[in-house]
Amino acid sequence: MGQVSWKGLFLSLFDYKTEKYVIAKNKKVGILYRVVQLSILAYLVGWVFVVKKGYQDTDTSLQSSVITKLKGVAFTNTSELGERLWDVADYVIPPQGENVFFVMTNLIVTPNQRQTTCPESVNIPDALCYEDEDCPAGQAVVAGNGVKTGRCLKDRDSIRGSCEILAWCPVEKRSKPKKPLLGSAENFTVFIKNSIRFPKFKFSKMNVLATNNESYLKTCRYSTEHPYCPIFLLGNIVRWAGNDFQEMALEGGVIGIQIEWNCDLDKAPSECNPHYSFSRLDNKFAEKSVSSGYNFRFAKYYRDAEGIEYRTLFKAYGIRFDVMVNGKAGKFNIIPTVINIGSGLALMGAGAFFCDLVLLYLIKKSNFYRGKKYEEVNPPASLKSTVAVLIDVNHPVQESPEQDVCE
Amino acid sequence: MGQVSWKGLFLSLFDYKTEKYVIAKNKKVGILYRVVQLSILAYLVGWVFVVKKGYQDTDTSLQSSVITKLKGVAFTNTSELGERLWDVADYVIPPQGENVFFVMTNLIVTPNQRQTTCPESVNIPDALCYEDEDCPAGQAVVAGNGVKTGRCLKDRDSIRGSCEILAWCPVEKRSKPKKPLLGSAENFTVFIKNSIRFPKFKFSKMNVLATNNESYLKTCRYSTEHPYCPIFLLGNIVRWAGNDFQEMALEGGVIGIQIEWNCDLDKAPSECNPHYSFSRLDNKFAEKSVSSGYNFRFAKYYRDAEGIEYRTLFKAYGIRFDVMVNGKAGKFNIIPTVINIGSGLALMGAGAFFCDLVLLYLIKKSNFYRGKKYEEVNPPASLKSTVAVLIDVNHPVQESPEQDVCE
Amino acid sequence: MGQVSWKGLFLSLFDYKTEKYVIAKNKKVGILYRVVQLSILAYLVGWVFVVKKGYQDTDTSLQSSVITKLKGVAFTNTSELGERLWDVADYVIPPQGENVFFVMTNLIVTPNQRQTTCPESVNIPDALCYEDEDCPAGQAVVAGNGVKTGRCLKDRDSIRGSCEILAWCPVEKRSKPKKPLLGSAENFTVFIKNSIRFPKFKFSKMNVLATNNESYLKTCRYSTEHPYCPIFLLGNIVRWAGNDFQEMALEGGVIGIQIEWNCDLDKAPSECNPHYSFSRLDNKFAEKSVSSGYNFRFAKYYRDAEGIEYRTLFKAYGIRFDVMVNGKAGKFNIIPTVINIGSGLALMGAGAFFCDLVLLYLIKKSNFYRGKKYEEVNPPASLKSTVAVLIDVNHPVQESPEQDVCE
Repeated sequence: MGQVSWKGLFLSLFDYKTEKYVIAKNKKVGILYRVVQLSILAYLVGWVFVVKKGYQDTDTSLQSSVITKLKGVAFTNTSELGERLWDVADYVIPPQGENVFFVMTNLIVTPNQRQTTCPESVNIPDALCYEDEDCPAGQAVVAGNGVKTGRCLKDRDSIRGSCEILAWCPVEKRSKPKKPLLGSAENFTVFIKNSIRFPKFKFSKMNVLATNNESYLKTCRYSTEHPYCPIFLLGNIVRWAGNDFQEMALEGGVIGIQIEWNCDLDKAPSECNPHYSFSRLDNKFAEKSVSSGYNFRFAKYYRDAEGIEYRTLFKAYGIRFDVMVNGKAGKFNIIPTVINIGSGLALMGAGAFFCDLVLLYLIKKSNFYRGKKYEEVNPPASLKSTVAVLIDVNHPVQESPEQDVCE
Repeated sequence: MGQVSWKGLFLSLFDYKTEKYVIAKNKKVGILYRVVQLSILAYLVGWVFVVKKGYQDTDTSLQSSVITKLKGVAFTNTSELGERLWDVADYVIPPQGENVFFVMTNLIVTPNQRQTTCPESVNIPDALCYEDEDCPAGQAVVAGNGVKTGRCLKDRDSIRGSCEILAWCPVEKRSKPKKPLLGSAENFTVFIKNSIRFPKFKFSKMNVLATNNESYLKTCRYSTEHPYCPIFLLGNIVRWAGNDFQEMALEGGVIGIQIEWNCDLDKAPSECNPHYSFSRLDNKFAEKSVSSGYNFRFAKYYRDAEGIEYRTLFKAYGIRFDVMVNGKAGKFNIIPTVINIGSGLALMGAGAFFCDLVLLYLIKKSNFYRGKKYEEVNPPASLKSTVAVLIDVNHPVQESPEQDVCE
Repeated sequence: MGQVSWKGLFLSLFDYKTEKYVIAKNKKVGILYRVVQLSILAYLVGWVFVVKKGYQDTDTSLQSSVITKLKGVAFTNTSELGERLWDVADYVIPPQGENVFFVMTNLIVTPNQRQTTCPESVNIPDALCYEDEDCPAGQAVVAGNGVKTGRCLKDRDSIRGSCEILAWCPVEKRSKPKKPLLGSAENFTVFIKNSIRFPKFKFSKMNVLATNNESYLKTCRYSTEHPYCPIFLLGNIVRWAGNDFQEMALEGGVIGIQIEWNCDLDKAPSECNPHYSFSRLDNKFAEKSVSSGYNFRFAKYYRDAEGIEYRTLFKAYGIRFDVMVNGKAGKFNIIPTVINIGSGLALMGAGAFFCDLVLLYLIKKSNFYRGKKYEEVNPPASLKSTVAVLIDVNHPVQESPEQDVCE
C-alpha cells in the first residue's frame, strides 16, 4: 500500500483544485459585483495602463548636463562709474555657465576701500555713541563693518556720533539706485544647452535639435511658436514666471527654469522633447521684509604702486536663474505589466469581499445565502467515529435559522 | 431555443458567484485566523494609514531655493599681513550666497609670487637632487609647483639640494598656523532663506515666518527655544554637528545643514514647518591621514606699474556648509486609499493560506478537514454520460446541459 | 435564548472558515497550474528576493559630500603670454574643490582691454556698415561686444567697414589655437574624496579606504587593478568616457564621474564599496554645430597707476567634470519581507483565475467542471421553505474518508 499511496500522492499533485462557488441568483448583488468588477477594470486599464503607463519599466535617474551662455551688453552712465559698458564677463557670476547663474541688474559700488579707520555707518545701532566709552576698543560692531578703535567721532555741534572703526574704509553707504542700473538686461539672451541620458535605457538626447540649421539657432527665440528653440530672452523668462522685470531687477530674486523630459521610449526618439516652465522661487510677497530680494557683496582687489592692497566693494542685486532638469522615461517591460495585472486581479478579491458582505449581511435573504455559502462541519470525536460524523453532517441541525442570526 | 439561451446567458451574467466556504469548528485554527486577521488589520490601520499616511497622495519633487547671507567681521594681526580686518567679501567663497558656501577660517598666504625661477620646496621627494643631472630640464616636478630648469640648487656645505624650477616664485611654504587665524568666525551668523514649493499641490512656503516682525528677525538666533528663527550662529551649527569649532577651523571640514519639510496638507498651512538638523559630512576620524580636512588654493592677480603680472596665493582652510533641502507633502486622495485597502485585503488571502496549511496538514484531524475542503470530482468518460454524473451530485436539476451552454 | 445566542455568536467567531475546493482530476490543467505556481514562486524567490532583495528595507536618501583636489603643472610658451607656468590656482575654476570643477585646457587671451572706442569685430553681421547711418549711436550690436557710437570705420580703399563701438577694447579676436594650449592637462591628477551617509541606517563610509597607508594614497592611480584608489588621471577619465583627451581639450566638454554606492548592510561594512563610472555628458556628435564644446568668458581686473581699470579677457575652453554620487543601502526588515510574500501569494490568486478560465471554458469537458464548480442556489420564496433547501444539500456520498488519504 505504501507504493500505492506514494504514486497517489504524486498523481494528486497534478489534480487541479479550484474553489467551489455558489451561484446566488440575486440580481442586485450580481449587478453590484459586475459594477465593482468594471470599476476595477476601468481603473486598471484607464488609470494604471493608459494614464500611468503601468506596462512600462521606468527610469527616473536622469543624468543631466546643463551649459548656459549669456549674450548681451549694457551701457550705463553714472556719476560714480562714468560711462561704462557691461559685457558678459562683467555681469555674469559665476562665469562658468553652469546650471545656476546670476545676472547682475543693480549695484552699489564703493570704490577705493582701504584697510584704515573711518566712522561706522550711522544707520547701525551698535555704532551709535555719545562719548569714547561707548566704543570699547577691539569690539566688533554687531551687524557692522569693522572693529571699534575706542573713539567716538562726532560732527561739530552734534552730541551724537558714530564709533570710529578699523575696517575697509570708507564703508558702504546704504542706498541703492531707485532705477535698476542694468535694466536693459531685459534684452539679454541665454542659450541653455541641456544633454540628458537615461542610463537604464541607454538613451541620450539634447534640447538643441539636430535638424535645426545654424542660422535658425542664432536668430530664434523660445516662445510658444518655437517650443524647441533653446535661446531665451531674460525679460520673457521673468514675465512667464509672473513677474515684472524692472521691478525684480531693482531688488533681485530667484527664478527657476524647469526642464521636464517625459519620454515614452516605445515611441520614436523624436517624440521625446523637453518641456520648459518658469517660476519664481523666492517669495515675492515678502516685499517689505528683510527677506525680500536677492543680493550679495563681492570685491575686486587691486594693489597700488606701493603694493598696498585696496578694493572696490560691490553690493550686487540681480536675478539668479536655477535651471532644474528632471525627467522620466518609460519603455515596455513584461515584469511591471504582469505585476500590475496581477495586483489588479487581486483587487477583484477585495471587490468580491465587499459584495459578500452585502450578500451575507445586508440583503433580506442573507440568512439563506449564508447557509449556502458556509457549510458547517464538525470534527469527529476520533477517526473511528467518522461514520457518526457523516451522519452528523447529513442532518445539519445547527443550520437552523436561529443560529444564522448568531453568525 | 437560441433566443432562450441568449436571454439565459445575459441573465446569468448578473448571477453573483461567491466562494463556498466550509466552516471548520476548530477553535485553535479559528483563533489563529482571527489573530492573523487582527494583525493584518492592525498593520493596515496602524502602519499603512496612521504612520505612513497611506490615504494621502504624496509629492516628493520639492522645488527649493536657498539664499544664504553671512554677517560678521574678524580682526587679525600677523607678521605677514599686518593688521587686517576681514569682512564678508573677504572670507566667503563663492560670494553669491548659494546653498553651498565656504567660510575661510585659516590660511597660508604666499604674497608677491612671480613667474620666475626659484628652488623647489625641500619637502617634495621628486625635487631632491645631488647634481644637475638629477633635474632634467623641462620635466614637471611630481606633486610639485613647477618645471625643472636643469639646475640643482644647494646650500653652501650641503651635498643635497633641491632642483631649480620655473614656477610662481617663491613657492608656498608648507606650514600652517597652529591656531586658526579667523577663529572668531565662531561668532559669525548666517541667515538662511529657504523657499519651497510642492508643484503637485501648488503649495509654497518659506522658512522665514511672515508673522515675525523685522526686529525679531534681526536679533533672534536659532535654538531649541527659537526653532523657526532662520539666523544661525556658525559656532552653534558646528557644535550641534558634534564638533569643536576651533579644532575644525584649523583643518577645515564640511558641515551639512539639512532642512526637512514634512507637510501634512490636510492640516493648516501653518503646521507645515521646517525642521533643521546638522551633521558633519566629511569623515572627521581620518584626522591623521592625507584625507583629513578641507582646503583649497586660490590666487589674487595683480599687475605692477610695468604691467607684469604677480599674484598672492592663498591656501584657504575653512568650513564648507552644504544646505540640503528635502521634503514631502501629503494630501488626502481617494486612489491611494482604495489601493491600500485593496492590497490590505489581498494580504488577508495570504493569511488564510497560512491557516489552511495549519488546518489541513498540521493539526490532528487534518485528514477529516482535507476531505471536507476538497470535493473530488471525476470527469465523465464522455459528454454522453453526464446523466450518470448528475445522479452523483444529488439531482441538481438546474445544471442541465442546456443551461451550461448559456453560462 | 438571548444569552444562548450571544454565547453562540461569540463561539462562532472562532470557527475557521475555509474555501471549499473542488478537485478536478484533470492532469492538463493541474500541470498548468503547477507550472504557473512554480513560475510565480521562481519570480518571487529569484527576482523579488534574490535580485531585488525584497526582504530588505532600503534607504536611497544618501547624504554625500564631495571634495576634489587637482594636482599638476603645465608649462606653455606662446607669443601672447610668453613663457608661463600654469598651476592649480590658475587653471581650476572655481577653486573651491566642489563636486563640479572645470579644468582649463585652451584659451583665447585678450589682454589690456579698456573702456574706450574701437571697431567691432568684422565677423559680426550686425556691425557691418557702408556709411555712418548704418551705425545708429547708442544701439547695442546684436551678438556683439558693445554699443555703436554712430561712426562707420573703414579701411582705406574699402567700401565696407564695421561700426565703431564703445566697449572693452580691443575686442576679442575670433580664433583659437589649433592645438590645446594646456594639452599636458592629460597628466594632471584629481583626488576625489567622497563621504557618504545613509541616515536611516546611521551608516557612514568614505571612498578613501582607512586601511591604506599614506604613501599608497600618494602614489596610486585608479584603474581596474586599483579599484579603490581615489586618485584619477584626467587623461584616463576622458579615455574611459570614450573620448580622446587632446580632441576634447581643444573644444571643451563635460564629463560625468558617477560614484555608485550599492550597499548590502546585512553583509560586513567592508563589502560596501564605491563603483566608479565615466561618461560624456554633453553631446559630442554635434561637433560642427554651434552647440559643440564647452567654453566661457571671464576677466581679471586691474588698475593702472592712475586708477583706471583695465582687464584681461579670457575665453576659456576646457573640461568640466561633474561628480555625481548616488547610492542605495538595504538591510533586512520584517515589514517589506511580509509584504512581498503576501503580494506574491496574492499573485497566485491571479494564476488560479487564469487556470480557472482554461478549466471552465477552454477544455473539452469544461461544461462538466463548470457544473461542479458552481453550485446554483435559488433563494426560497420565504424563510419557511429552508427545510426543502436543506434536503437539497444532503447525501454528499463522495466525501468518504478513504479518499482523503489520497490527497
